[in-house]
This record gives sequence, C-alpha cells and structure tokens, in this order.
Amino acid sequence: MYLEKINSPKDLKKLDLKKLDLLAGEIREFLVRSISHTGGHLASNLGVVDLTIALHYCFNCPSDKLVWDVGHQAYTHKILTGRKDSFSNLRREGGISGFPRPSESKYDSFSVGHSSTSIAAALGMAVARDLAGEKHNVVAVIGDGAMTGGLAFEALNNAGARNTRLIIVLNDNQMSISRNVGGMSSYLNNLRITKGYMDAKDNIKNKLDRVPLVGSALKEAIGKTKEGLKRTILPQNIFEDFGLEYIGPVDGHNIPQLVKLFNRLKNVDSPVLVHVITQKGKGYKPAEIDPSKYHGVSEFNIESGVRVSARKQTYSDVFGEKLVELGAKNKRICALTAAMPSGTGLDKFAHTYKDRFFDVGIAEEFAVTFAAGLAKSGYIPVFAVYSTFLQRAYDQIVHDVCIQGLPVIFAVDRAGIVGSDGETHQGIYDISFLSHIPGLVHMAPKNKYELEDMLEFAVELKRPVAIRYPRGEADTVLASERRKIELGKSETIYPGEKIAVIAYGAMNKTALEVYGELIKKGLSPTLINARFASPIDEDMVNDLLDYESIYTIEDNIFSGGYGESLGAMLTEKGFKGKRFKSFALPDKFIEHGKREALLAKYGLSSGSIAEEIVKDNEIGS
Amino acid sequence: MYLEKINSPKDLKKLDLKKLDLLAGEIREFLVRSISHTGGHLASNLGVVDLTIALHYCFNCPSDKLVWDVGHQAYTHKILTGRKDSFSNLRREGGISGFPRPSESKYDSFSVGHSSTSIAAALGMAVARDLAGEKHNVVAVIGDGAMTGGLAFEALNNAGARNTRLIIVLNDNQMSISRNVGGMSSYLNNLRITKGYMDAKDNIKNKLDRVPLVGSALKEAIGKTKEGLKRTILPQNIFEDFGLEYIGPVDGHNIPQLVKLFNRLKNVDSPVLVHVITQKGKGYKPAEIDPSKYHGVSEFNIESGVRVSARKQTYSDVFGEKLVELGAKNKRICALTAAMPSGTGLDKFAHTYKDRFFDVGIAEEFAVTFAAGLAKSGYIPVFAVYSTFLQRAYDQIVHDVCIQGLPVIFAVDRAGIVGSDGETHQGIYDISFLSHIPGLVHMAPKNKYELEDMLEFAVELKRPVAIRYPRGEADTVLASERRKIELGKSETIYPGEKIAVIAYGAMNKTALEVYGELIKKGLSPTLINARFASPIDEDMVNDLLDYESIYTIEDNIFSGGYGESLGAMLTEKGFKGKRFKSFALPDKFIEHGKREALLAKYGLSSGSIAEEIVKDNEIGS
Repeated sequence: MYLEKINSPKDLKKLDLKKLDLLAGEIREFLVRSISHTGGHLASNLGVVDLTIALHYCFNCPSDKLVWDVGHQAYTHKILTGRKDSFSNLRREGGISGFPRPSESKYDSFSVGHSSTSIAAALGMAVARDLAGEKHNVVAVIGDGAMTGGLAFEALNNAGARNTRLIIVLNDNQMSISRNVGGMSSYLNNLRITKGYMDAKDNIKNKLDRVPLVGSALKEAIGKTKEGLKRTILPQNIFEDFGLEYIGPVDGHNIPQLVKLFNRLKNVDSPVLVHVITQKGKGYKPAEIDPSKYHGVSEFNIESGVRVSARKQTYSDVFGEKLVELGAKNKRICALTAAMPSGTGLDKFAHTYKDRFFDVGIAEEFAVTFAAGLAKSGYIPVFAVYSTFLQRAYDQIVHDVCIQGLPVIFAVDRAGIVGSDGETHQGIYDISFLSHIPGLVHMAPKNKYELEDMLEFAVELKRPVAIRYPRGEADTVLASERRKIELGKSETIYPGEKIAVIAYGAMNKTALEVYGELIKKGLSPTLINARFASPIDEDMVNDLLDYESIYTIEDNIFSGGYGESLGAMLTEKGFKGKRFKSFALPDKFIEHGKREALLAKYGLSSGSIAEEIVKDNEIGS
Repeated sequence: MYLEKINSPKDLKKLDLKKLDLLAGEIREFLVRSISHTGGHLASNLGVVDLTIALHYCFNCPSDKLVWDVGHQAYTHKILTGRKDSFSNLRREGGISGFPRPSESKYDSFSVGHSSTSIAAALGMAVARDLAGEKHNVVAVIGDGAMTGGLAFEALNNAGARNTRLIIVLNDNQMSISRNVGGMSSYLNNLRITKGYMDAKDNIKNKLDRVPLVGSALKEAIGKTKEGLKRTILPQNIFEDFGLEYIGPVDGHNIPQLVKLFNRLKNVDSPVLVHVITQKGKGYKPAEIDPSKYHGVSEFNIESGVRVSARKQTYSDVFGEKLVELGAKNKRICALTAAMPSGTGLDKFAHTYKDRFFDVGIAEEFAVTFAAGLAKSGYIPVFAVYSTFLQRAYDQIVHDVCIQGLPVIFAVDRAGIVGSDGETHQGIYDISFLSHIPGLVHMAPKNKYELEDMLEFAVELKRPVAIRYPRGEADTVLASERRKIELGKSETIYPGEKIAVIAYGAMNKTALEVYGELIKKGLSPTLINARFASPIDEDMVNDLLDYESIYTIEDNIFSGGYGESLGAMLTEKGFKGKRFKSFALPDKFIEHGKREALLAKYGLSSGSIAEEIVKDNEIGS
C-alpha cells in the first residue's frame, strides 16, 4: 500500500515518520515473496530493512554516498531507489544484480561483492569530497562479520587518524554467514550485553553533546587537548582507541530512533561509528530461527520455508565427505575456512574433528599464513575457499606458503562461472593468479571421483597444491575412466589422430560432448583431460607436436590460463601444425546469469565448439 | 670480548646477567662496523639488540620458536645463533640473507620478509604445538609499524579468541620505515605517554598475578566468568579488547627487566602481548637522529655516517620529480604510499602537495581500495609501491579498481631483480599477477625519459594502469629514441629482418647490447621495445609472423610473463617461423645477490643471449 508509491527516495521522504514501520512490513513481505521465486540473499536483507529505510529517509542519495559492505544486503536499498519492479529478474541474465553496481543505478555509489571494503572506499570518497570542497555525507554500512577482515581494520586505523566527516554504520547481527568468530566478536557481544540500548531521549543526546559538531565553538576552543585527556581518563572502547567517535549500541529495528540519530550525525565533522544491532532474518520465522540456512537461498515455499528443487550432491559435498574420510586416516590433516563452514562442505569435518577445524572468520590472508604456520610444524592444512575470495591471499600464498614449499592444500571451490552472483564473484581468474607461482601445483578434476583421487594425492604430495572445482552439482561423466593421478601428467581419455581436444577440470564434460559430435562427423580426435595446469605435462606437449589441430577448453579467462601456457609451450617447441585454438573465457569481467547460458554466450557450449572444430577440419581445409 | 665466545644461544646462557649489557655494546659496535662495509638494515637492528639478547637468554631456541615480523631486524638473532662470521658476506650472493631463512639455520623458524605475518604464523605454530601435545614456547616479535597491516589485525582477532599459549612482543619504536601513521599509532603513543614504564619489582608482578598461569587453580575456579566481568568493569586497552593479556609498556633496553619478564611469561597459558619500547638506531648517533635514513643503507663511513659511493639518480627519483611536475598542472592527481614516502621517491610530492599526499601505513590493501574511492570521486590516485608489496593488494586491484575501470595508477617500483633483499622481495611476478587482469594496462619504460612519458600518458588515460620500473639507477640508454606513447603499441627502435628481438622495460638496455653484438656478427635483427605487456601490440604480432626467429627478453618469470603471452599469440596466429624463444627468469624463487650477477646466472646477460641468438642463426641453421 505504501510500497507501491515509492519509486525513489524522494517518495520515501514524503511519508510520515509513523508510516515507516508499515512500509518496512510491506518490504519484508515483498522480499520473502520475491526471493521465494528467484532465490537470492534473504536473511541479511530482512535484517536491514528498517536501517535502510532510516538511511534513505535521512540522507539525500545519490548526492550523499551510501557504500554497502559486501552488498548482498542492499535489496531494500534497490527497492527504495526505483528497482522494485526488476526483482522478478533478480540475479538473472539481463536482470538486476544481487549487489550494488554503479552501472545499474546512480544510487549505487561503489561496486561491491567481496567483504570489508566499505570503510576504505568511503574514506576515499570522503577525502575526495573534502579536497573538492564539497559537503555531502558519506556513509559506510558494514556488518560485524566483515569487520574481521584485515582491510576493514586498515581502514579503521586510517579513518581514525584523519579528521574527515565519515559515518560508519556497524550493522551488528552477531553473524558472518555463519556464527561470527574472533576476539572482536566477543568484544561486541560484551558491548551489547553490558551497555544495553541507548535511550533515544537521554543517552543519545548526551553522547552527541560530546561529539564535536560542525562550527561548534566549544570544539575549537578545546581542540585536541581534550581528546588526549579524554582518552587517558575515561574508560574507552575499541573504536575510540582507533580515534573514532563511538555511538551505540542502537536498536536497528527502531526506525524513529534511527532517523533522529542519523539526522544529528549529518552535522558531525569527524569520523563516527554507529553501532546498530539488528537481527538477521527479522520478520520471517524460518530465517530468524536459522539465518545461516537462509543466507543465500534458491526458490523456496513460503509457508514451509522448504526449497522447491531437490538438493543434488555438489562438488563441495564430495570434497567435504572425502576430507572426513582422509582425516580419519591421517591425523595431521586440518581444515580451514574463512567464515564458510557450510558453503565449502566443511561442516561435517568441523563436527567430526573439532580440534583440527578452524573457522577464522572473513580473513583469507590470515587463513593462509596461519596454515603456513601449521604446515611448518608438520600438519597438512586444507583451506577450502571460493576461487574469488582466494584472490585476497595472493601474497600469502607466494610469500608464506610457496617460498617455503609448505604442504598447504587450497581447495578452490566455485571455480569457473559461478552464475547469479556475477562479476565480483566469478571464479575465472584462479588459473591466472595461481598457476604461475613457483612450486605451486594447480590441478582440476574432470568429475567427482577424480576430485576424491586428487585430494588423496594432494595430501601425500608434501607440496603447495591448489585443486579447483566448480559450483553446483558434482559431475559423474567419464566415471569409468579412473586412472591413477601422477604429478604433472595428463590423462588421455580416448586416443585419436590429427585433432587433439584438451580440457581442464569441469570443462571435460563439455569436451566429451564435443568429442561425440566430432566422432559423429567422421573425425577421430584425441580427447585429453589436462589434469594439471601447473606443471603442464611436457610429454603430452611433445606428442601434440605431431598433430594438425590442437584445441584447449577451460572456464578461466584466456590470459594467464591453461590454453595460453600450452600455446606458448607449443611455439617454443616449434609446433608446425595447422592450428592452435584456445576456447576460454574472454579477458573481461563477466556479469551474472546461469552458468550454461554464460558459457554459451562466450562460445564455450559444446555445440559451438564442435561446430568450429568441424569447420576447421573439413576435408580440404 | 664476550661476543667472540658466543657461537650459539647456549654460550649466551653461560654469561652472567650483569654481563649482557656489555655484550649488547659489543654487538652494536659489530653491527655498525659490519654494515658500514656491506650495507644492510641498520637502525632497526640497533634498536632490538637488548631485546634479542633477552629473548635468547630466556627461551630455548630452536625448540622454542621465535618468529620475527618482516625480519630485517634479525641481525642480532643471527649473530647469537652462530652466524656472526658470515656477516662479511651479508646479503651477497652465496652469503647469508638479510632475513630469517629456515634454509639457512634451524634457529630461523619461519621465512619472512613482508610485513605483518608473524602473529598469524606463530599462532599456526602454537596451535600445531597444542595439537601435537608439545610444550615449547612460540614468540612473535612484531613492530608497531607492522601492526598497521590488516593481516596483523586478523591474527590478533584470532589469537584473542583462541586460548593458546602465545607470546607477542610488540616492539614499539614509533616508526615504520618512516614515522608511523594511523589511529593505532596515536593510541600506542598515548599508552607510552600516560602509563610510563612498568616497574620491574612492583607493577610487573602485580600485573602478572592477574594473568592466569599454567595449572593455576585460581584460574580454573574462576574461569571465563571473571574474564567477562573484568572486561565490563575495568577500563581496558585495545589488546585486552581483542581478548589478549596486555603487559607494558616495558623498557626494551633494560635487559635484566626483560629477562625477568620473559622468564615469567614462559608459564602463561594464554595469549599475551608484551609492549616493549625501543629506540631505532640506538647506540649509533647518526641513526638515532635520523633512523629513516639509516633504515636500509649502502656502505658508509662510520665517523661521519656518510655513504661511500655517490648517490645516482634512480627511477624512483625520476618518478617522484615527474609526479610533482604533473601535480602542478593537474590538481586531481593524488599520491599514495604504504609507509615508504622516501623509498618510492614521493617525499617531494608529499612536501609540495600535502593535501593530496597520503601515507596510509603498511596497508597495501587499504591503499588500493582507498584509491578506488578517490578515483570514483573524480581524482587520479597514483599509488607508488614496490612490485613485491603490491602482491598483497591483488584482490583490491581486481575487485575495487578494475571491475569499475577506475583511473588508478600503480607506479610499480623495484620491479625485476631487486638484489640484496632476496627471494621475499624480488619484483619478478608483477607481469604475471597483473597483466592478465581485464582492463588493466601494464607498461614498462626503456629509460627514464620514457618513464616520464608513460606517467604523463597514464594520467590522461582514465583507466587502471600499472607502470613497472626497476630498482636503482635510471637508465638513459636510447635517449634519442623518444617516440609518442600510444596505447598498446610497441616501438620499433631499429628495423631489420628475419630476427626480431623484443624487450620489455628495463631489459631494453640488455637488448640494445644484444643488438650490437648481432650487428657485429653480420646479422640484421629488428629491435623492438614492447612497451605494453597488456594489451600486447597485435599489429606487431602480425608483423612478427613473417620472421624466422623471434626472441623476447624480460626480467619477470616466464610463467604469466610477456614472452609467454606473446608466444601463445604467435601460435594462435599460426606462426610458422623457425623458432620462438623467451629469455625470462626461471619459474622459481630467486635468492639474494647483485642484480647483474643474478641476471647473468639465469641466462639474461647480453653476452649469453647474443651468443645463443648467433648460434641459432648461423648460416645454414
């Protein structure tokens, strides 16, 4: 009833303050209904409906800048900024993204997806505003889960030292995707328990009176001396230690109070952190009870909360189960996750071998260096992590693991096209950023059985290893082809002649289809499962020199990928055949959409590959 | 007199406590004398002489594990662990490393070089010890500068939540390489000023009585409840907020007090942070007065403190001066450094345009995302950073800068072989980890004039750009060849036929020498300056198809490097010439040594390259 009239924040501001709670109820209904059809992030979005309404009611976007950390909680923001009618195509090809995207709306001030970036980006915007002599507000909204990432701390450290106007809203829901971990989490927990909510009339006013306001004569008079004194005399909290003003905790579901608070904060001329307490899943019972389960969902039945489609065995499942099996035999195996015990399939290991399981919070850098410490002491740590998030630990992989040649295993999940999360989450760079690292073994299985074999192989290898596998259902193609894994050796699945088709990892399924097509056309290609992107099988390369046409298939970008490496080796070895072609993803960022559709769009469907190969090799060509 | 008798920590333990100060004096003399001959890190090492003596006097290495953060301050550690006679070959090829290296000594428990890794690695070792049921101590020594890195915070957050025995020594010398920055730095400053040193007899004992000891009945009785209570009632400090015990500040030059303290800490069964105050450069006046200048030094005269060799104009100088010039014309240009205003040549910009200069501390991730925020708001941030340290910001470059196509310029200093700092610091991966990133332009100048031109070009480009250039003296070779920079276009320096030699960046100097040799031998090669590793000049590649022999020269590893990309392009385009060879560094980690010597060792001297090319192209071949 109110929602339908809101097409921009201007419409929101026309509403009476008292109506905002009703609007929040409507938005929650809309979110549950909409996401039950399309899938998407649910619990986090339900938690910030009231907070988002209050923010847009007080601030003037897009001139004021709102930076969402991670961004999967920005659905209400999208609804209030003219995109509610697009929710039927949420996260679908051509539809709106599940994350803020400046290319999608002027209200999305910064592209996000990975965690812990908001304070740094917002501080950059705030400093730019000061340099330009402008006056707008910059607001970062960051969850307590994202606060465990080092980048967030680096930004707090810099924000505290810089006397610029910046509002940081700490959205404390006591969760990452799963239960939040670490000293900071306990600390926030204590703050919540011991301080209780601030009272709108009294405490907030008192507190704000202590905060220097723009043009405040008092502030100028007292200046920095007071700050110094205050710090030494008064008990402080951790954010004040960093040099920020702290306000809170505040009830994140009390819209009138939030509105009052934000309106006052507009005039504060130093960095302020507002500690807002919210409940993940708020307003939808199944999500309130088990917010982790409703973090990211596929289509579900609203009444029961049960997902519509049957859940299939995923690569993460296969990985998780195999690791439990290996962990029973080898007590040196440890498992690590950065806040994703469930998504990575590690929950079973976590329950079975509690001592050897480590959820380090959203802290990929730490995970890798910590793993290096474990490995240096004789353990075999397995860090299960999404390809896109491992990007954050590139230096630690090089500097802490590989220089020392330590046996850390990277289980690189969600490699390749991840689908609906889109450009910030595609796992299409890990061959490029990992396979060149000296001493690191990079491999990828063709099906679930090979994932098991590779994991077993990796555990015995005593070297740094990355194993990449895709999101979603575990393949069983070529189940009968189960040859022993040997370091740096490819697997010839079907021998043939003249034409060689070499696939890496999950693309073996596509390659098999291509092979079938070629056979139908009377060609007799060799089908090879590459297995290793580093080291590449040199014997195989020598054999390939005798072929006329060589094709590689991978779901990584071309640059730095498998095909590029193989292509260069062929040139160096003096390949004189007719052609070499690499079927890979183009060197660009790839938007959201279904995996199969995106692969097809970029020329990686078996149909189009087969067609091209047939055309290349028609008699007489 | 004492020093000569010490060949291992065992010998040290034989000394009477009262003699340790005398030993410290001898070590300082030794360090100044030795480093004045070899060059190396001076100020940081002079600062921790007493601390290191106390640590080795109390703990039993190598069974106890000592993890040095960064590691350039570990000279006294090396002296005390049997390596003092090797200091004449410090940082020289075949000599000892300037950093802890497990391959060099069993006393070096972990390889280090980059900042902020120690707590994470030490926590991994401590947890491994617990899992294995062992009892030794694990001690991380981390500077206040390194504490600004996100990885250190992630580790504090995890250490605080995990009830394991771990000693963190915070070596607070109020400095990174330059003056330390950020909220944490102010905070430590306040701690120092307001608390004063702890007194050995009283305060330390009182404080330690509050710390739970191994087997303490009290602790078990009171358990976690007390912790919770204490936190809410008592004023806390930031490390206690994270869940660590805090002890300090302690005078880091008072050996007897440090010894007493460390002996007691051995029995504490939870993570403890000891805040030790030291003075950088302690004991050598010139270094005490200007510790930044004596951070890393080349040979110098002990009396005057003046360096022996004349300082030549470096690429960093050229970069810094050009940026000042550009900054005058374009007020949108900002400059960023992660704690290296002097090393990167940015000090002049910092003085001239104070508002547009940002030293963010050791926080490369933050630097990049902060730069993205500036760029999104219309500014042109130039982040000057050593190639090896930029590794830490790979994800931020991809996720925050390049997805949005923001005009952030990465001035990638110390690219290629850096020399005496060795394997943790070589800048030989940046082509591999940067050039595949979609939308990022990667270029490298042949000489100092081209660096100026490329910088000017980059500022106008409105795209993410990396410009790589090496450590040391700025080249003036080919000064008369100064053609306009065009995006993705190489520069043909001397046209020729049949043989093409293509060099990237600093290796143009080598390529020119190779060219001279080939001309002498009667060959007439084409000499090309690649200029861009991304995008690679496609017209050039098409032209190359007509050549017999193609050679690339670069000071990056082969994998992911320029030659590999070009090689793959040639194959895809159907190159049918006689040969393609890439002269690049091998896919391995490369130890310390002089740049020219290491290049020669790995086949990149002009002599060996010319010889190989001549042999390839002898008449009849």
